[in-house]
Amino acid sequence: MENTRKPLIFITNDDGVNSRGLHAVIEVARRFGRVVVIAPETVQSGMSHAITMYSPLFLREVRREPNLEVYALSGTPVDCVKMAFDHLLTGQQVDLAVSGINHGSNSAINILYSGTMGAAIEESFYGCPAVGLSLDDHDPQADLEAATLYAERIIERVLHAGLAPLCLNVNVPKGKPNEIKGMRVCRQNRGYWREEFFCRQDPRGKDYYWLCGSFFNQEPQAEDTDEWALAHGYVSVVPIQVDLTDYSRMERLRELL
Amino acid sequence: MENTRKPLIFITNDDGVNSRGLHAVIEVARRFGRVVVIAPETVQSGMSHAITMYSPLFLREVRREPNLEVYALSGTPVDCVKMAFDHLLTGQQVDLAVSGINHGSNSAINILYSGTMGAAIEESFYGCPAVGLSLDDHDPQADLEAATLYAERIIERVLHAGLAPLCLNVNVPKGKPNEIKGMRVCRQNRGYWREEFFCRQDPRGKDYYWLCGSFFNQEPQAEDTDEWALAHGYVSVVPIQVDLTDYSRMERLRELL
Repeated sequence: MENTRKPLIFITNDDGVNSRGLHAVIEVARRFGRVVVIAPETVQSGMSHAITMYSPLFLREVRREPNLEVYALSGTPVDCVKMAFDHLLTGQQVDLAVSGINHGSNSAINILYSGTMGAAIEESFYGCPAVGLSLDDHDPQADLEAATLYAERIIERVLHAGLAPLCLNVNVPKGKPNEIKGMRVCRQNRGYWREEFFCRQDPRGKDYYWLCGSFFNQEPQAEDTDEWALAHGYVSVVPIQVDLTDYSRMERLRELL
Repeated sequence: MENTRKPLIFITNDDGVNSRGLHAVIEVARRFGRVVVIAPETVQSGMSHAITMYSPLFLREVRREPNLEVYALSGTPVDCVKMAFDHLLTGQQVDLAVSGINHGSNSAINILYSGTMGAAIEESFYGCPAVGLSLDDHDPQADLEAATLYAERIIERVLHAGLAPLCLNVNVPKGKPNEIKGMRVCRQNRGYWREEFFCRQDPRGKDYYWLCGSFFNQEPQAEDTDEWALAHGYVSVVPIQVDLTDYSRMERLRELL
């Protein structure tokens, strides 16, 4: 019985339930099993690992077909994951969880700000293999061909590999599939963002600011990073863990404190 | 000239500009130098490392005294940090940055969800020592005596220690100062949250859900963790880094992909 059960794949994203990247990966995942989607009602880019603590959440069924259910939730990407695993799918084994395909890369330190990766990390907390998928192209009309092709390869290889719990940060460069050199398992690139605040005045003369940043790569020459892979035409794959302890500083701190 | 310059301390939090914990740490920090605060206008608990990408931010001066400026920003804790370092304080050297004092602990995996720690991590990206301070008591009327005492000790010891960039996740247990056994440098405890969704109906008969979770400690016996320290009456101090790469999985993934 268990052997003939269709795999169950959960999908969310941070661009919201209407994004093209979400629908592209839904079509890929359907080839492998039953698909359940809970995606945010609205765009949640930059929402990181945020959860909604002080307002209620509304869940809306968007689409129902054989082996596919799509819901929209009035919350963050991580809320969507929690709603799936702790409510909608309670008692069911999720065989793989996906977040994406995001419009815009989530390499390097972007993983900290990314709603896509917040959701993928949360998915992995439920014991299944989780894959965050992003395309290095912010255009909502971006060409998704290469991203869907690699999404399929990764889903196929991870689904039955028995590596759970696992969380992968996968970023696909811009370009046609034949321009992409393959996949590269990398480490997270070191770097940071600096912001420019666009200051204007609202119709009532009050100043407002709009955040607009630039990324500074601290190690552009390092060939083992996700930034390098993306910049050189590879799909970057970074395995993710969440122990943020800086073990290298503990001794010195014990002396100081 | 440089030697007589007052240290500049930046403070933010996630409980918002009116929280008691914020005002307690402002009073502590003023003993050490000039203090600039940008705190969120509204409660931002659970906002993690979120940034505001799709709406403008409004900055409001709340209080100005000799060596103290307090502003409120209509954004997230990380927005506040960026507004400080990339706009308000551009060109000035920040000697120490603080986030807190949070009402509620941010030990273990809570660091991922925490707006307090999102801000502290972001502060450290600007090259200064950054300290996230939390009290293991959610009560807005919590006794802040021990937390302010340890805030003072840590600020004093970190301010001129030359350890920057540095990020500390400091959690203070409930209790009077004489009940606390001291500080313990720890690692982040392993564990995860599982949610219960409270489901009710709104006045128009539509279902709504409210997230309400429980923490599961995966290693309650491990004496080197922050959870253990807090549970046993110590102030936990975890040094933080942000490379999420799981180096232990890279070889196996290279074989698989």
